[in-house]
Amino acid sequence: MQTLLLDSVAVDENARMDEVIDAVERAFAAYERGDVQMPAKSYIDLPEYNGDFRSMPAYLNADAWDAAGIKWVNVHPDNPHAHDLPTVMGIVIYSDPGTAFPLAIIDGTELTMKRTGAAAAVATDHLAVSDASSLGIIGAGTQAYTQLEAIATVRDIERVVIADLDEERVNRFIKTFEDDFQVMSGSPAEAARCDVLSTVTPVEEPIVDREMVGTYTHINAMGADAKEKQEIDEELLLDAKLIIDDYDQCTHSGEINVPWNKGYLTDKDIYAELGEIVIGSKPGRTTEDTVTVFDSTGLAIQDIATAHVVYEYAVKNNNGHPFDLLGLDK
Amino acid sequence: MQTLLLDSVAVDENARMDEVIDAVERAFAAYERGDVQMPAKSYIDLPEYNGDFRSMPAYLNADAWDAAGIKWVNVHPDNPHAHDLPTVMGIVIYSDPGTAFPLAIIDGTELTMKRTGAAAAVATDHLAVSDASSLGIIGAGTQAYTQLEAIATVRDIERVVIADLDEERVNRFIKTFEDDFQVMSGSPAEAARCDVLSTVTPVEEPIVDREMVGTYTHINAMGADAKEKQEIDEELLLDAKLIIDDYDQCTHSGEINVPWNKGYLTDKDIYAELGEIVIGSKPGRTTEDTVTVFDSTGLAIQDIATAHVVYEYAVKNNNGHPFDLLGLDK
Repeated sequence: MQTLLLDSVAVDENARMDEVIDAVERAFAAYERGDVQMPAKSYIDLPEYNGDFRSMPAYLNADAWDAAGIKWVNVHPDNPHAHDLPTVMGIVIYSDPGTAFPLAIIDGTELTMKRTGAAAAVATDHLAVSDASSLGIIGAGTQAYTQLEAIATVRDIERVVIADLDEERVNRFIKTFEDDFQVMSGSPAEAARCDVLSTVTPVEEPIVDREMVGTYTHINAMGADAKEKQEIDEELLLDAKLIIDDYDQCTHSGEINVPWNKGYLTDKDIYAELGEIVIGSKPGRTTEDTVTVFDSTGLAIQDIATAHVVYEYAVKNNNGHPFDLLGLDK
Repeated sequence: MQTLLLDSVAVDENARMDEVIDAVERAFAAYERGDVQMPAKSYIDLPEYNGDFRSMPAYLNADAWDAAGIKWVNVHPDNPHAHDLPTVMGIVIYSDPGTAFPLAIIDGTELTMKRTGAAAAVATDHLAVSDASSLGIIGAGTQAYTQLEAIATVRDIERVVIADLDEERVNRFIKTFEDDFQVMSGSPAEAARCDVLSTVTPVEEPIVDREMVGTYTHINAMGADAKEKQEIDEELLLDAKLIIDDYDQCTHSGEINVPWNKGYLTDKDIYAELGEIVIGSKPGRTTEDTVTVFDSTGLAIQDIATAHVVYEYAVKNNNGHPFDLLGLDK
């Protein structure tokens, strides 16, 4: 038996976005039903290198299939300028739960972008107005691409406003999508007036406030992934219908961590975990709702659900490089 | 930049045992000095498959070098008869701590055997009589091979007694080593009378008691790695100078877990952690000592220290398969 090596190109080819969104939605549902094992992320902090490692193991049973594995991922902000390497690099080991055989070793960087886009799409599908046709994105980095790719799978997006201080990144984004969408550069306020807004920045001072957003805007707050980070103004968070992916992660390092830890935002301001909406124990958008916010920190089960899709399609398409890492064929 | 794939053959070729023992000894020293980050092993228990997964991330600073990575490993006891797969399979991701770039992906099964042998050798070096020349091994499975390989590196072993109920396994072991040592099959009692004894079995009822062992025998109790497992009789454990690798792991799932949890063996019966002996804060064997016991559960820092040696030699020897998993060369 061989282990399939799936590089970034193979991930991109085999992460069929509609299937990834479906798998990630099933993962959120399984989480809420208790059909998941997901030990807390464990961190190795290396202040001497201004970086950290995170290990994210998970198992999920999505009824039709189950899946297990681990993502090993880092954040080293000095990498781009000091080492010509990405800030974040990840590897996923995707294992057969029944035997633990490592079915695949997968580039976790590309996979993380796909699963993050998919989480925003699941939230958007349940929380945006049904006829949403405009999408604003603040932050034109790599995550912006899968936000559009994924959200356009669940809503008929025609117009896209991309906001970033870096003109080169904005132009690259526009060039990528201009054949398929009406894409334009805009200010954060212009992006925020769209039907759906995704924020994918690493800021620590809020860049979206109450006055900026449309009456019925749904916001995917994707950027905050560490203490002190915050993209959305407190007043707006308190005013919106607030949905989180996971209580422990969001209060620790998600969009709400700053106001929650200061006590400005309390547990009763949180409407639901996304999984509760997915399984129908709480309604998503109702006719009374105005602004909705999804606080996404990213769960290990999203990675493993996405790995499941990538692996299944790669096998079907004969993609990837089989390698006898464990020496079982000898 | 490419990631080096190192399969079981490459691990065997590049895990130079003297260097692995040195690296593992430095890891124990770093642990005792506090130059290590090692989050608790996290478990995913899958009773429906009679198996589990364990994730073991670690960073260690050994002064001359530092290293980071994670081992993802399982125990699925039904694998051999139901799926023709090993009970235990492991993969190590070995990362540059400075940038987090994944330098290598390594077969963790072979590597685990090497590092387990090395831990026994470190303990034996500090705790066995200096002129030890006989080694008994109870359990002739795969771990037995690296016990002999490693312990013969730190003591001038001439005579080896191998004990196992499975004659085929005994014969295979004898055949492997008969050119280099005087190897013979024997009972557990005959093995236990040697200067050094290693137990590498999965038993839950003790198989070595006080009467069996020699006056100055040093015992490496390597087998117990889960609740309820125990190889050494309580009376013998209480009578011996008892050294453990890690307090939390040993009381949870090591050789001492059963008597410790029953309260028969208490903290004051534990003489030291191995690291304390390595750094000299407590003496190893002294002239007053009779029987010594090392309770080994296996630490993630042993894996990462061993991965460091394997990777360095593989690069030097031009071994392994470079693979651009993260797509950074594109």
